[in-house]
Amino acid sequence: MPSPDATDSTAAAPRRIVVVGGVAGGMSFAARARRLDEHAHIIVLERGAHVSFANCGLPYAVSGEIEDEQSLLVQTPQSLKAALALDVRTHHEVVAIDPEARTVTARTLLGDHVLAYDELVLAPGAAAVLPQVAGIDSPRVQTLRTVEDALSLRDAAAIGTRAVVIGGGYIGVEAAEALRMRGLDVHLVQSARHPLARLERELASHVTAALVEGGVHVHAGSRVTAIVDGPDGADVEISDGTRATADVIVVAAGARPDTAFVQDAGVDTADGAIVVDGLGRTSAPHVWATGDAVARQDPATGVIRPVALAGPANRDGRLIADAILGAATGVPARPQPAPLGTSIVRVFDLSAAMTGANRTELEAAGIPFETIHLHAGDHAGYFPGATPIHLVVHFAPADATEPGRIYGAQGVGAKGVDKRIDVLATAVRAGLAVTDLADIDLAYAPPFGSAKDPITMVGFVSQNVIDGVVRLWQAADLDTVRDEALILDVRRQDEWDAGHLQGALHIPHIELRERLDEVRAHAAGRPVRVHCASGIRSYLAHRILDAAGFDSAHLSGGIQTLLSYHGKDILTHEVDQRSAAA
Amino acid sequence: MPSPDATDSTAAAPRRIVVVGGVAGGMSFAARARRLDEHAHIIVLERGAHVSFANCGLPYAVSGEIEDEQSLLVQTPQSLKAALALDVRTHHEVVAIDPEARTVTARTLLGDHVLAYDELVLAPGAAAVLPQVAGIDSPRVQTLRTVEDALSLRDAAAIGTRAVVIGGGYIGVEAAEALRMRGLDVHLVQSARHPLARLERELASHVTAALVEGGVHVHAGSRVTAIVDGPDGADVEISDGTRATADVIVVAAGARPDTAFVQDAGVDTADGAIVVDGLGRTSAPHVWATGDAVARQDPATGVIRPVALAGPANRDGRLIADAILGAATGVPARPQPAPLGTSIVRVFDLSAAMTGANRTELEAAGIPFETIHLHAGDHAGYFPGATPIHLVVHFAPADATEPGRIYGAQGVGAKGVDKRIDVLATAVRAGLAVTDLADIDLAYAPPFGSAKDPITMVGFVSQNVIDGVVRLWQAADLDTVRDEALILDVRRQDEWDAGHLQGALHIPHIELRERLDEVRAHAAGRPVRVHCASGIRSYLAHRILDAAGFDSAHLSGGIQTLLSYHGKDILTHEVDQRSAAA
Repeated sequence: MPSPDATDSTAAAPRRIVVVGGVAGGMSFAARARRLDEHAHIIVLERGAHVSFANCGLPYAVSGEIEDEQSLLVQTPQSLKAALALDVRTHHEVVAIDPEARTVTARTLLGDHVLAYDELVLAPGAAAVLPQVAGIDSPRVQTLRTVEDALSLRDAAAIGTRAVVIGGGYIGVEAAEALRMRGLDVHLVQSARHPLARLERELASHVTAALVEGGVHVHAGSRVTAIVDGPDGADVEISDGTRATADVIVVAAGARPDTAFVQDAGVDTADGAIVVDGLGRTSAPHVWATGDAVARQDPATGVIRPVALAGPANRDGRLIADAILGAATGVPARPQPAPLGTSIVRVFDLSAAMTGANRTELEAAGIPFETIHLHAGDHAGYFPGATPIHLVVHFAPADATEPGRIYGAQGVGAKGVDKRIDVLATAVRAGLAVTDLADIDLAYAPPFGSAKDPITMVGFVSQNVIDGVVRLWQAADLDTVRDEALILDVRRQDEWDAGHLQGALHIPHIELRERLDEVRAHAAGRPVRVHCASGIRSYLAHRILDAAGFDSAHLSGGIQTLLSYHGKDILTHEVDQRSAAA
Repeated sequence: MPSPDATDSTAAAPRRIVVVGGVAGGMSFAARARRLDEHAHIIVLERGAHVSFANCGLPYAVSGEIEDEQSLLVQTPQSLKAALALDVRTHHEVVAIDPEARTVTARTLLGDHVLAYDELVLAPGAAAVLPQVAGIDSPRVQTLRTVEDALSLRDAAAIGTRAVVIGGGYIGVEAAEALRMRGLDVHLVQSARHPLARLERELASHVTAALVEGGVHVHAGSRVTAIVDGPDGADVEISDGTRATADVIVVAAGARPDTAFVQDAGVDTADGAIVVDGLGRTSAPHVWATGDAVARQDPATGVIRPVALAGPANRDGRLIADAILGAATGVPARPQPAPLGTSIVRVFDLSAAMTGANRTELEAAGIPFETIHLHAGDHAGYFPGATPIHLVVHFAPADATEPGRIYGAQGVGAKGVDKRIDVLATAVRAGLAVTDLADIDLAYAPPFGSAKDPITMVGFVSQNVIDGVVRLWQAADLDTVRDEALILDVRRQDEWDAGHLQGALHIPHIELRERLDEVRAHAAGRPVRVHCASGIRSYLAHRILDAAGFDSAHLSGGIQTLLSYHGKDILTHEVDQRSAAA
């Protein structure tokens, strides 16, 4: 209940608050500020033509799924004036700030204006990085960051038939998908070894397959080396030797914080990103910042980097309003949580999602971790329409300070990936150990999940890892395992016949108890490294081997993970491998 | 990594473990027990013909969505023998146990057998409760608890055209839906005021609407008073005056723990449910219990009741195996978490889910709580195909010992309800406050959610409630509010014209700042109780009114919740209500 004081305090001279940038973080700040202070003068300066537009929706305006681009304009200056009494000024580019004098300089078509402020909130966002390539200034080259960009690309797609997308991040993948949906021939050029660079290799192969199946020509580990414009399209030279002709070229090769005017004012930045404290304060008094231009710390690895996501930007904008204006209403200044980088992307019929750190980042940070893989249906296998979800979860090992701490998780699949990653992201935020996932009571009926949900299974498997009931070997260890161990394949005969690892011993898991002597003979003192298709039967086999005194481990994720990590060429179809293994 | 001791310890005489009941909890125990102890003799006694069958899938075998009933048989005694060396005996009904002698007596077609045990795990489940109604012994009456029941009902549905389902819980609703999908004319008779009795009234109305739209005749607050069998169907008399003719009658009116033999042995029970400690131990030494027959404590209200859900049963069975057999392998005896009763049901195109306690249970327990309502799209509104999710969340108020503690949450909607309830169930298990939900980084892209997800919004709204930025009034308070306050409707003119509350004052929210004098005049010293359609605009209006010194509160969930709570008859379409309010 609001105290009487809350309203009284607004009787003082209204505060003048200037916001630079009127999309996610800036506009969330402004709206919240008004709800906390009916009398403040809140001015939002936006460089572009639109505020509060749905930038995450832009690719779908290109694909045609969003038919009316007006629906991307969630608010307008007029609607914001009417509902929230905000003073929103578009086509106002802030070119300078003076924290001493508490002024900002905004450039407009009519010249520069200087505005005074009591509090300044910076949400300038990021600007596209263009690769330094001959011909990048071609009029066929464009980005996809504004409503105008989306309309321009949609128009280009209506006329042209061939596109090159440079960059395989979210926007690049979404742009490639959108242009395919418009019927264009699309090349996707990506410098990392696969699209969605932060996705684990064994999951990314599913994404690449979905892109290829969707008709996209994927050029991974490649870059565009030249663009030569011509009357009938641009000739695009790709480092893998391909020459593609394009009517339109979309650059989605990253962005950098748009902070020249902030740096000029002496506000602290790191690699161009604005440095803030836990409440969103910059190094300059009365200057705050949020959104894609702000440096944030990864809670798992400690790495400092901007996080270009709408959710954290909105939340932080709101929290800055609370910090500036909350006291009079009894609202505490809550600290901004460190963003986990939780994200998801649709790639044709597939979705790929992640939260927290990935394997590369953990290795770079020198953090020891365990990794488990799971292949499970999005709902009960006996109910029609179940599709596989592939999950990877990294967590702290048994001997860590916080055993089972969840460092990161990723998933791909046709359905239900968003749900599992959201549950994992909730668990991370709450500080649950991975083993605690077994204790969550999830909503189960056959159309929605399984009595042992993939999340529950992550809990069970990780308990086994932490407790030492299972020992895992990883797809990445294949070469070492081949050199030093007996590989035991416990799948059925028909699975073995369809392809197996050269040199492996084959004993179906249900025969293992009776054939341990064969294992002993073939192992000849070497460790035994078991695998099956997905990891379930090899777990049972591992328990049998362990009880019989073998040095045993089983393959995380089974041959499914092995194939998606290494590719199908690692399998042989030769018969009689069993004797060859002797 | 398993210690060398782990295998050595199994060199002792193998333990003999008897399990009573071979479906969810019992079979999860048995499978886990084998994985922890390769040498134990594990005997599973099952009264029925099948073990480890998918009982949650039975309604879908009736509907025909599951075409092959074999797919319901997840495991067979043979497959369990082969993979896990389990000794599974079907058609063995345990009729007595002797904890002193450590024996069980199993009744079979060939007579009674007495088996000795070192450890006994009881998972006998529950038996259907048949209403005491004349004619309930008709051969047309059946339950839906076994594979045989499902096949029998499917066969009956293939011949008959008319069905009565008694009981509106999960199984009753699923059976009604399944029989409608088979084309039968279906009456659903339910003693509570609406189907799915634990669902909040304002959400249950959506479920009733879905049932009615699906063609089910819903008789809520009713019971069957007589069944008179005839050659052309049974005449079913319903207390609301309906007489329905049925070819088949499904009884799904609850179940009671099937524990006569347990009580006979002097093992502690409460209302027939077996009492266990935190590890699953009963009052008798070496006797453990899990599943639908066990009494569990509600973590919010402290009430003791059985929880008939597969997930907790599986988990507890596994944990009992850990407690009995884990030590040798380094597995700790983890305590069984208190089940939250998280559950979900599909009702034609709708899903309804819940976790934790509901309003009635909290009131009965004398626990003060706040309630918020949310109506939000399952994904971004500008992306095609968004459908509404209606959420209700109960939590501890600002002055409670644990402010913001989440007591319970429920949701209905066409899509995405499972995801949100799973996130909430995770938050409850993790002990997050409702206000912490704002801090979770959820996976967002337009096809999957919103930058401000319904979960994020629950966090924001609850922060406002806890901080006193908003004050809510509830649909249940309507009569009091009408008597004592000015109701202010801040919707658009066209919404007002389509129906509004008699006596309300109408001022669109965007005009409110200019028309505060009108509010003051109409209020005439009374409190102002604002509402809009869903609660967003009335929140803005409340902030304006609060800043202007009014005693203001806004309606949780807006008129959407009001209508789903009270029904559409509370609205009037009379014009010129504005002056009538004076």
